[in-house]
Amino acid sequence: MREIFYPNSVAVIGVSNSPDNMGRGIVYNLTEFGFQGIIYEVGPKGGVFAGRRIYKSILDIPDHVDLAVILTPARTIPSILEECGQKGTQWAVVESGGFGEYGEEGKKIEEEIVQVAKKWNMRFVGPNCIGVINMENGLCTPFPPLKRIVRHGDISMISQSGGVGMSVLNLMANEGLGLNKFVSAGNMLNIQTEELLAYFIEDPGTKYILLYLEGIQDGGKLMEIARRSPKPIVAFKANIGKFGKSIASSHTTSLSSNDRVVEAAFRQCGIVRVHDATSLGNDLKILRLPAMRGKNLAIISRSGGHAVIAADACEMSGLTLVQFPREFLEEIEKHFRASVIKLTNPLDLGDLFDLEIYLRIIDRTLAQKEVDGIVFLHTFNATFEGQASRDLFARVIELSQKYDKPVALYVSTEDQEVSYLKKNLKHPVFTQVVETIRALELNRRYFAEKQRMQQPAGIPSFAVEKERARSMLEKPRLERRDPLLHEAAEILRLYGIPIVRGIPVPDEGEAIKAARELGFPVAMKVISQQISHKSDIGGVQLNLRSEAGVADAYRDMVKRIRQAYPEVNIEGVLIQPMVTGGRELIVGGRQDEQFGPVVLVGLGGIFVEIFGEVSVRVAPISRREAIEMIDELRGAAIFRGVRGLKPSDIDAIVDVLLRFSQLVCDLPEVGEIDINPLRVFQEKEGCLALDVRMILKKD
Amino acid sequence: MREIFYPNSVAVIGVSNSPDNMGRGIVYNLTEFGFQGIIYEVGPKGGVFAGRRIYKSILDIPDHVDLAVILTPARTIPSILEECGQKGTQWAVVESGGFGEYGEEGKKIEEEIVQVAKKWNMRFVGPNCIGVINMENGLCTPFPPLKRIVRHGDISMISQSGGVGMSVLNLMANEGLGLNKFVSAGNMLNIQTEELLAYFIEDPGTKYILLYLEGIQDGGKLMEIARRSPKPIVAFKANIGKFGKSIASSHTTSLSSNDRVVEAAFRQCGIVRVHDATSLGNDLKILRLPAMRGKNLAIISRSGGHAVIAADACEMSGLTLVQFPREFLEEIEKHFRASVIKLTNPLDLGDLFDLEIYLRIIDRTLAQKEVDGIVFLHTFNATFEGQASRDLFARVIELSQKYDKPVALYVSTEDQEVSYLKKNLKHPVFTQVVETIRALELNRRYFAEKQRMQQPAGIPSFAVEKERARSMLEKPRLERRDPLLHEAAEILRLYGIPIVRGIPVPDEGEAIKAARELGFPVAMKVISQQISHKSDIGGVQLNLRSEAGVADAYRDMVKRIRQAYPEVNIEGVLIQPMVTGGRELIVGGRQDEQFGPVVLVGLGGIFVEIFGEVSVRVAPISRREAIEMIDELRGAAIFRGVRGLKPSDIDAIVDVLLRFSQLVCDLPEVGEIDINPLRVFQEKEGCLALDVRMILKKD
Repeated sequence: MREIFYPNSVAVIGVSNSPDNMGRGIVYNLTEFGFQGIIYEVGPKGGVFAGRRIYKSILDIPDHVDLAVILTPARTIPSILEECGQKGTQWAVVESGGFGEYGEEGKKIEEEIVQVAKKWNMRFVGPNCIGVINMENGLCTPFPPLKRIVRHGDISMISQSGGVGMSVLNLMANEGLGLNKFVSAGNMLNIQTEELLAYFIEDPGTKYILLYLEGIQDGGKLMEIARRSPKPIVAFKANIGKFGKSIASSHTTSLSSNDRVVEAAFRQCGIVRVHDATSLGNDLKILRLPAMRGKNLAIISRSGGHAVIAADACEMSGLTLVQFPREFLEEIEKHFRASVIKLTNPLDLGDLFDLEIYLRIIDRTLAQKEVDGIVFLHTFNATFEGQASRDLFARVIELSQKYDKPVALYVSTEDQEVSYLKKNLKHPVFTQVVETIRALELNRRYFAEKQRMQQPAGIPSFAVEKERARSMLEKPRLERRDPLLHEAAEILRLYGIPIVRGIPVPDEGEAIKAARELGFPVAMKVISQQISHKSDIGGVQLNLRSEAGVADAYRDMVKRIRQAYPEVNIEGVLIQPMVTGGRELIVGGRQDEQFGPVVLVGLGGIFVEIFGEVSVRVAPISRREAIEMIDELRGAAIFRGVRGLKPSDIDAIVDVLLRFSQLVCDLPEVGEIDINPLRVFQEKEGCLALDVRMILKKD
Repeated sequence: MREIFYPNSVAVIGVSNSPDNMGRGIVYNLTEFGFQGIIYEVGPKGGVFAGRRIYKSILDIPDHVDLAVILTPARTIPSILEECGQKGTQWAVVESGGFGEYGEEGKKIEEEIVQVAKKWNMRFVGPNCIGVINMENGLCTPFPPLKRIVRHGDISMISQSGGVGMSVLNLMANEGLGLNKFVSAGNMLNIQTEELLAYFIEDPGTKYILLYLEGIQDGGKLMEIARRSPKPIVAFKANIGKFGKSIASSHTTSLSSNDRVVEAAFRQCGIVRVHDATSLGNDLKILRLPAMRGKNLAIISRSGGHAVIAADACEMSGLTLVQFPREFLEEIEKHFRASVIKLTNPLDLGDLFDLEIYLRIIDRTLAQKEVDGIVFLHTFNATFEGQASRDLFARVIELSQKYDKPVALYVSTEDQEVSYLKKNLKHPVFTQVVETIRALELNRRYFAEKQRMQQPAGIPSFAVEKERARSMLEKPRLERRDPLLHEAAEILRLYGIPIVRGIPVPDEGEAIKAARELGFPVAMKVISQQISHKSDIGGVQLNLRSEAGVADAYRDMVKRIRQAYPEVNIEGVLIQPMVTGGRELIVGGRQDEQFGPVVLVGLGGIFVEIFGEVSVRVAPISRREAIEMIDELRGAAIFRGVRGLKPSDIDAIVDVLLRFSQLVCDLPEVGEIDINPLRVFQEKEGCLALDVRMILKKD
């Protein structure tokens, strides 16, 4: 991959003297960015460009060419790549559009170029992209003419959109963030996002990685690479809507939309997700500060109003305004004309105007072991206090490094001064109070999570009858139907997930016998291959208290279903004992196209539909993740015990989630599965699945 | 009030030649901003400043002085105001700090200056503020030296923090938003926010009003003024946390925190609330565009990636990507090389590079009656397309005005060009895709709401026995206790709110008799002045099915309470019939310090505590508001009927809310009241309060 970013020679293919030729933009950018290697121009018409020969083919170039950058019509690409292969140029950037994104014809050309690349063992970026940039050697291959406005730094970016990539480079330039490398990945026929990410993780010049993603090819691989990254990865994942609208055949599918899985997966592998440009910039900044090791924040502000806004934001973000210890306050009082400032947190510097005193207060505050980080809010007039403020900031940055604690600098001053500070301080500068504090909390979470991820996760493995479960799925698969309730229930049992006992019976007489055997009251559920949402069509009868009741319910159920759905074949009913007490959860799993097996848990009953409160994770999950899933439910308090309610058996839920996670990983042929409800009893009393639906993956 | 902003002469009191004198900053700013009136300097030491005499007292000035701007130590203010009074100067801005905000001594001085002002019929802004600015005549009285970076425009601001005010002026300068007037309101001893707001609503130079609020003095007055404002009011209300932490004695109080009331009140009177600087700037911009009259958005983007982000944001914000009509697409196809652009919404301009074509597409899109507004996302290189893009924007702005539909312009280009566009276009420019679309939806909601507010609200008035209700509250008031359950129930009845029948009885025998009269099963609730949360101490027994059951429950309840709380005096129990079926709501009301009577409704039972899902409004409410309150509950779907459930009697809930609103307005002596639960039955079957708690206002 190094060859893509560090070629000694580049051939730009698609250069001509025609006025609307865009290939010349690439040559322009290579020159503008001071590319340190040799540039060759290639174009079928030949000619001269800026005093240099335009070769008619790459084959005509007398020397070796490391990298071909190609911008010619789509249909010409296969033969051009063929020539590159013959030339021994194994690396290319194909910027041309007109491929799969425009239809069938383009798709065919894509297949051709994949073949050519295979034949010559070539690797290429694109097509349909704007190329690569490496600030270290001035390699800059986008075709829109650029100015070198962003500075050389340590952030590298992979963008699945050229336009968004360019916008982010503008943002970075404005925020004073430095770029190391940039790739516009395009249609990713050959070199994928995951591979580029793996390269940046090893690349010495890259310290921070930024992703703009519209799609994910191999979610599992992405997670695996991200998990081992010592470098922060910030990702803007767009294209959220489309998947959400796909038709969902189970609760789990509608509740674990692709985007919720992305959210969970990123969290599980430590990728910081952003949703807009504001937080993109601020998150890239805040992760450059030392880690905030706890929740205790000190706010030091020159303006009382900003202190109030910061305190609000602190409360909303979940950080804590640390109480300053008495000794500290006494020390401050002794030194700093304390009569005019209120010694509280937020510390309003009131009418102190001496910046030297600010510095001493910040120093002493950082020295407090109770303080994990500071937000320093400085409002000033650049004309009168510009230089003094620059000096103050420089020394505050030293203090932040000395104490290895973050000091987030918020400034409010003239535009030009803000711009100067952003571009010249060795430390990020923030310009929005609320965002600054949100970002600090992100810093805390990021580093805490990273530390936890270094401890082995410990995915438990239960002794289960996996092979028997798989063989049980054979019959429905051959019959091209989904497993029936009692078949699905048996599979749960094989995985040690407790499910209410049930006796499948073919007729009324057997139903009464089964009810007698189980003891009244009982529940009756229809068994039919064609019926999936049983309760919607009257296929569930609860609380049947006598033999007569069972008989009535049976006849009534059959009659009603036959009337409403004459084509439905009723195979019988399942008789179960009624289960009372406890609270309800839904536990679900499905195979996600990008990330593979996924599990979710949510509050059961009608609330899951109305509030959509669920926790999602990519499986397999660790015990810690199972507990987190429960705790992050907004309804978790119900299970922990509130207002006189006894706590539920959380251990049993965790056990079910872990076994369920193993099940969805072991049995990829199960496309979707819902346990709904899982009835959870009081502590030590376990839980019990009352119903389960299983849908096999369609081939 | 005009005199504060348009004085012909200003005396700056507190000027000296001492190096740290801050009064000179005021003179500096008046000069810098080109104040068109006469400036006098006043300071007790006298002397000369910049070739002009410093008068020792305002009384020494030979001419009339319209406005005194005072920056001297707090203790000197009463005598200085006295001199202003003697001089006949009736308007002042007191910038000095050291008053109520610093403690008791300062509070005393505040009382003195209020008295002096009363005596001379003076009006003043402050103290503890940074003064006023009027861009029309160059009046600029803040003491920190300023540069005239913000341009003269039509936005006026009232800020309860000087520092935040200055930050917002920086923001406005950077965004190219023009200022008309600015007031830092300070401690508001005399001139209040509400009065300033009323002035700005009448002020011809002001077209948009911006508020930064940390506290609200008279919420009712604020709402009344805002309601009649034809000018958009954007408010940043901070200081959220503190009130949330006050101890809540009822559900209603904890659920209708001061900040939720603020949120509701602003919405009810059409104030646009912002929570951070980003949306502050963007909301001020978006309200300057023509109204978006429906939800149908067209996205036109030069970059596919930006189009994807915009489509995501559209889905999240609740706007709709309008389907372009076939005729429109055919027209586009005919004219614009359609083979290379996909004719969908978002419209990705793909490899069209001719800006003239963009303009024609925007023109034709605006002409579609189905399209309510456009986001145009333009990424360009300023060096090569700067001038062409400026021309394009100018013409797009004309189109937006011609069709009277908003076109929100998003640009991604070099910093300097963005800055140029912000400062020179007669139309706001956005730089964040997600924010642009969120803001457009705000534009739509704002104008829709404003239009609705022009129709009379129609607060219904029910014939109720108000005087009897008031007299019923007399007894508990005299006995310094809260109303007992049956007393509170009677008051609900007087307001026509259906409440379950209940018979208060003193002992076991009477309890059995009452149960027999009501019919089994019954509920039993303890009656005691000292017990408020009855169920927490076992004071509620449900589902008693026989005389023996009632007797047992009575003895058991009394015994348990006596054991646990020996000091509690049990006055008897209330016997009620058991009510089955229906769904539960909580309905609450309280007297808010700032806004007066408030009503709320939420899902009942445990979910109100866990999800905190409630709708809050300042009373009295209209029928439309009552319906909105129910609809905005995330759980509203339950009442509308979902998945086979029958819909609930919404009309009955609306009726209860309206009567309840009248009750809390009629009876301000009731500090807090919860109906919990209100049981709601199926359509046409009404609803029934099962329990009510009433807490009288403490004097």
